[in-house]
Amino acid sequence: MLIGSIDIGGTKTMVGIVSPDGQILSKLQFNTERSDPKAWITHSCGRLKECIHSLGYDLKELSGIGVSLPGIVNRERNILVRTVYPEWNNLRAVELVQRLLGIHKVVIDNDVNACAIGEMYFGHRDLYRNYLWVTVSTGIGGALVCEGRLIRGYNGSAGEVGHMKVEFDHPLPCPCGQYGCLEAHGSGTAIKHYIEEEIRNNRIFSDLFDSLGLSKDAAGCARLAKDGNGTAIEIYRKAAVYIGRGLGYAVNLLNPEVVIIGGGVGSSLDILKDGILGTIHKTVNPALLPVDVVRTRLGYDAAFLGAAALVIDQMKTE
Amino acid sequence: MLIGSIDIGGTKTMVGIVSPDGQILSKLQFNTERSDPKAWITHSCGRLKECIHSLGYDLKELSGIGVSLPGIVNRERNILVRTVYPEWNNLRAVELVQRLLGIHKVVIDNDVNACAIGEMYFGHRDLYRNYLWVTVSTGIGGALVCEGRLIRGYNGSAGEVGHMKVEFDHPLPCPCGQYGCLEAHGSGTAIKHYIEEEIRNNRIFSDLFDSLGLSKDAAGCARLAKDGNGTAIEIYRKAAVYIGRGLGYAVNLLNPEVVIIGGGVGSSLDILKDGILGTIHKTVNPALLPVDVVRTRLGYDAAFLGAAALVIDQMKTE
Repeated sequence: MLIGSIDIGGTKTMVGIVSPDGQILSKLQFNTERSDPKAWITHSCGRLKECIHSLGYDLKELSGIGVSLPGIVNRERNILVRTVYPEWNNLRAVELVQRLLGIHKVVIDNDVNACAIGEMYFGHRDLYRNYLWVTVSTGIGGALVCEGRLIRGYNGSAGEVGHMKVEFDHPLPCPCGQYGCLEAHGSGTAIKHYIEEEIRNNRIFSDLFDSLGLSKDAAGCARLAKDGNGTAIEIYRKAAVYIGRGLGYAVNLLNPEVVIIGGGVGSSLDILKDGILGTIHKTVNPALLPVDVVRTRLGYDAAFLGAAALVIDQMKTE
Repeated sequence: MLIGSIDIGGTKTMVGIVSPDGQILSKLQFNTERSDPKAWITHSCGRLKECIHSLGYDLKELSGIGVSLPGIVNRERNILVRTVYPEWNNLRAVELVQRLLGIHKVVIDNDVNACAIGEMYFGHRDLYRNYLWVTVSTGIGGALVCEGRLIRGYNGSAGEVGHMKVEFDHPLPCPCGQYGCLEAHGSGTAIKHYIEEEIRNNRIFSDLFDSLGLSKDAAGCARLAKDGNGTAIEIYRKAAVYIGRGLGYAVNLLNPEVVIIGGGVGSSLDILKDGILGTIHKTVNPALLPVDVVRTRLGYDAAFLGAAALVIDQMKTE
């Protein structure tokens, strides 16, 4: 059994072939061109064909294709409802892929939902049945699994921890149009903002990035923090406290056994974990503790593997 | 088919007989005596016998007995795990009722979970499949229904909105041992606290309660607010804003279609609703709106009817 996977993110796209136990047999990655979604899906399907042919197989040998998309997905109507890229709104993604590749079983979902389902089949597997999956990256997204089932909510937005309010006194603006959201205070974008704030008054901190050839962003700052730089550690600590507040609300409300963290910033969980856990312990009902915070086992490929897992998950429930 | 219901609350107990469509055929209510939980269960079972006999039936005609309890319930182990009354912790409630009444089908749950399940069978019924049920009373409790199923969480505490942090600058102490919880700022106890604060500097407000023979609590204050008293309205408005913050977190995270409010303070939803909805609209991701806030259709008997619904719910899933 072979599964096709298409993971379209806001900045990168991955397409490839995955085995039922989560082995990546073939994969291509390239930057997302967002201006024309239909042209982009067509292009991605073409690259998927290359992947299957490179393995010496044909399209008809695929059991199904999973597609993860960066926005709110309506699974009953099989469309991408809403994204931060207006031209992608209401995209009939399933129909399009079915027609382009001649394969009936095409399953779509939001990228973070795909990650959470991927964790169930390919990551921590049956270890956890009640968890919150959180991507900490440029933005922050989340998904809920309760008793082994993904909770979608009334219109597909359950689990979106990114827009919980975590700062009331000095709230920063969020891309969602509101203020004080977790995404505005705890994401990679927020870390970049804290670096820029610091650099304005601290020339030495700026020079440090330059002298080591580091980008002035979350990744560069993580490198400095891991090297023991106090300012960089403090910046990560600040983000961690906000992440802990947002997760604290979620733990209070959902009583998960674990929070699983993915995403680029999330890959630095080692320097975030103390701040996150410290805040959770201060804000969560003691009856719900301990609750662990762990890294995804899917790494960088979480949404790509998750897209493949969507097909397995649907076969299981059929 | 007849169902026995035992609803043991922190202050009152109700026992009685309910029909499968939620008609109360017989009911007794009395104050809860908390010092000896086994003795109290025994007493309640005795009163339940009176109820069934008063209808001219015998115990063996009961299809099952539902019991709602004021704490965290472990449904697999059939015990009341944890309450604010330590002597009730780890009570083997199911075994006790089975033995006392000789009926095998005994189902227990937390009182708010029972309310949420009761709403599904006897209240708003199939109208909603994704909702948050919130009791606003002396304290604040909650329960989640997603896609028509109650979400329990890892150790039975999912949905407990009462301990979400809603005040960081001037947090009040909460019975849970933390500060700034929704329960400390938006419950009946909080409203009583605001009344006492006001009365310290406002003799006229105090005299108003006395002259009308009103108790200086949430119920008395609701009466003044409904009569148009500005101070009383402001007190309810303050509580409503906090309730709106707590519900806002829950809506952001769970994407329900509606929040259903019960409890004594919740019965004054007419004077709370504007403040709650206004705050929700300011704190919730616009993609999740509109979300309505409505009163339970079960009224004062929510947990009592909910206990009976536990039996129906379990029969349905067997």
